[in-house]
Amino acid sequence: MLRGKQTWWFDKRPVIIGSATVVGPDEGDGPLAADFDLIHPMLDLQQKTWEKAERLLLEQASDLAIQSAGLTKQQLQFYVGGDLMNQIISNSFAARTVGAPYLGVFGACSTSMESLAIASLIVNSGSGSYVLAGTCSHNCTAEKQFRYPTEYGSQKPPTAQYTVTGAGAVVVAAEGEGPVVECATIGKIADLGIKDPFNMGAAMAPAAVDTIQTHFQDTGREPGDYDLIVTGDLASVGFPIARDLLSRDGVQMEQTVFNDCGLMVYDVAKQKVQAGGSGCGCSAVVTYGHLLKRMKRGELRRILIVATGALLSPLSYQQGESIPCIAHAVAIEQPH
Amino acid sequence: MLRGKQTWWFDKRPVIIGSATVVGPDEGDGPLAADFDLIHPMLDLQQKTWEKAERLLLEQASDLAIQSAGLTKQQLQFYVGGDLMNQIISNSFAARTVGAPYLGVFGACSTSMESLAIASLIVNSGSGSYVLAGTCSHNCTAEKQFRYPTEYGSQKPPTAQYTVTGAGAVVVAAEGEGPVVECATIGKIADLGIKDPFNMGAAMAPAAVDTIQTHFQDTGREPGDYDLIVTGDLASVGFPIARDLLSRDGVQMEQTVFNDCGLMVYDVAKQKVQAGGSGCGCSAVVTYGHLLKRMKRGELRRILIVATGALLSPLSYQQGESIPCIAHAVAIEQPH
Repeated sequence: MLRGKQTWWFDKRPVIIGSATVVGPDEGDGPLAADFDLIHPMLDLQQKTWEKAERLLLEQASDLAIQSAGLTKQQLQFYVGGDLMNQIISNSFAARTVGAPYLGVFGACSTSMESLAIASLIVNSGSGSYVLAGTCSHNCTAEKQFRYPTEYGSQKPPTAQYTVTGAGAVVVAAEGEGPVVECATIGKIADLGIKDPFNMGAAMAPAAVDTIQTHFQDTGREPGDYDLIVTGDLASVGFPIARDLLSRDGVQMEQTVFNDCGLMVYDVAKQKVQAGGSGCGCSAVVTYGHLLKRMKRGELRRILIVATGALLSPLSYQQGESIPCIAHAVAIEQPH
Repeated sequence: MLRGKQTWWFDKRPVIIGSATVVGPDEGDGPLAADFDLIHPMLDLQQKTWEKAERLLLEQASDLAIQSAGLTKQQLQFYVGGDLMNQIISNSFAARTVGAPYLGVFGACSTSMESLAIASLIVNSGSGSYVLAGTCSHNCTAEKQFRYPTEYGSQKPPTAQYTVTGAGAVVVAAEGEGPVVECATIGKIADLGIKDPFNMGAAMAPAAVDTIQTHFQDTGREPGDYDLIVTGDLASVGFPIARDLLSRDGVQMEQTVFNDCGLMVYDVAKQKVQAGGSGCGCSAVVTYGHLLKRMKRGELRRILIVATGALLSPLSYQQGESIPCIAHAVAIEQPH
């Protein structure tokens, strides 16, 4: 299985037998609305706090993913998840509801693919037959924790991104019907010295490029082997940087085969989302909602999801630190 | 490999080929001082902030662990780590220094065994030959973030615990000399409704008991199969609760074979540490410092480390939530 230094090959071909996405109103107004399982009309989900609303998004996505897999909670063997909240409380509290043995992970917005990679490793190694991977974010919890509470109405620069209100979850299984997780490339930290928390797309672009290049080297694959390669949440500032960096290295890809979840989840030109979407929920809802459904419809055969994460905390940037970034890539294939 | 529902068996017998611990002055004044690799005389490690000091503890422990394994940083294939800081910044920044592909994890004070379990899974599945697992905590960063800055000099109730200033790291390898990681039991959330962040030992005790009982069920082992079973950081309030709960279930163990890292790391009667030690660093420095050295000296053949974690955040308890707790157990054996 040790074919590539940073890449795990899943030779037992773990299958995504269930998936679900739950989103908020802005995502429901976006171009991918038809592919989400549940759209909440109100940001607060009728909860008393934003944090409780975020947790509910994830609990609902987990429930729906388990249902769509035809399982009960009791059949789940492990739950792997994380989110942006301090001490990943959305996941830890959702894990209490789900009840399965739980591994908390944190990769900021790369958590979607980090948790999918670990869940697939567990299944592939025979250590579990049904593993849930989930993540979530909420616009108002993330803004409150990382920048300013949305109630302040503070202005944001155009390089800022709009945290997706949404949760995505999948059930990875040893056997069954569905898209197969082929391999995962685990990223290393890239930090080019950017310190501006309102420009995370630019900070994360080099990490995405490094992981994509490493993935091609490790696997011997090339862009043409994928019907679609998407980055997690580079949005309109970071994505062109990633494309430029790749093209300098001789990797040319059209937007039809290379795109970014942060650009896909909203109509960036019309919705008030600054540079585009971000947050743990961004790549999760685009992948587990839109892309898996396109695979099932036969429109995509093999895709590579390169989820990007900015591993800063408010405290680290207040202390003058730059933003360490990372990207984890997972290749998913729809069997014939 | 799927012998127990919550337990991963590592049939390829991954080996801990290197380990290191770095601690602060209070731990250096404690009974295990001789087993730590580096003792800092000052809490600030001559850094400008407590957070930078915590990160340095981990960077030093990682460096020393890699050295003790006879490796260079470039030979490391993956780094798995987490800590108590918001967005686990100590590990994410240390991962930048280490340079290896990085998986951030969070299990509060159970992170030591969560990261060791995942590192062992990676090695056992053939997905990596050299994997670093590390964690850390610092008394002043944890107090500041979870309760009050130590500079305030606020009083604490006797049920409170004293966060260990220390970092521990190990290198897990496919082959080599050293103690073998036999199996890991991944815990599920236990939450009996305790809401007091100054009484985490009591909150965590049921999680430790659940994981210990599950470990015995999954593996068919019993207490006598271990020379020592230690919980992570239940300390003087939580540990007797765990022992009582186990004895009600018919599991009787003397303190010579059942102990707690939070009670071992300090002289609880003499040092001003309230109920005893806690923090991610607690089980890490006791296990990777003291216990691994006892194994190498032939004093212990097989041990079970049950690292306990309270998965709260200041925000969750401010919103009136109870404390979800978890424990992950790893069995380590010294080959003959």
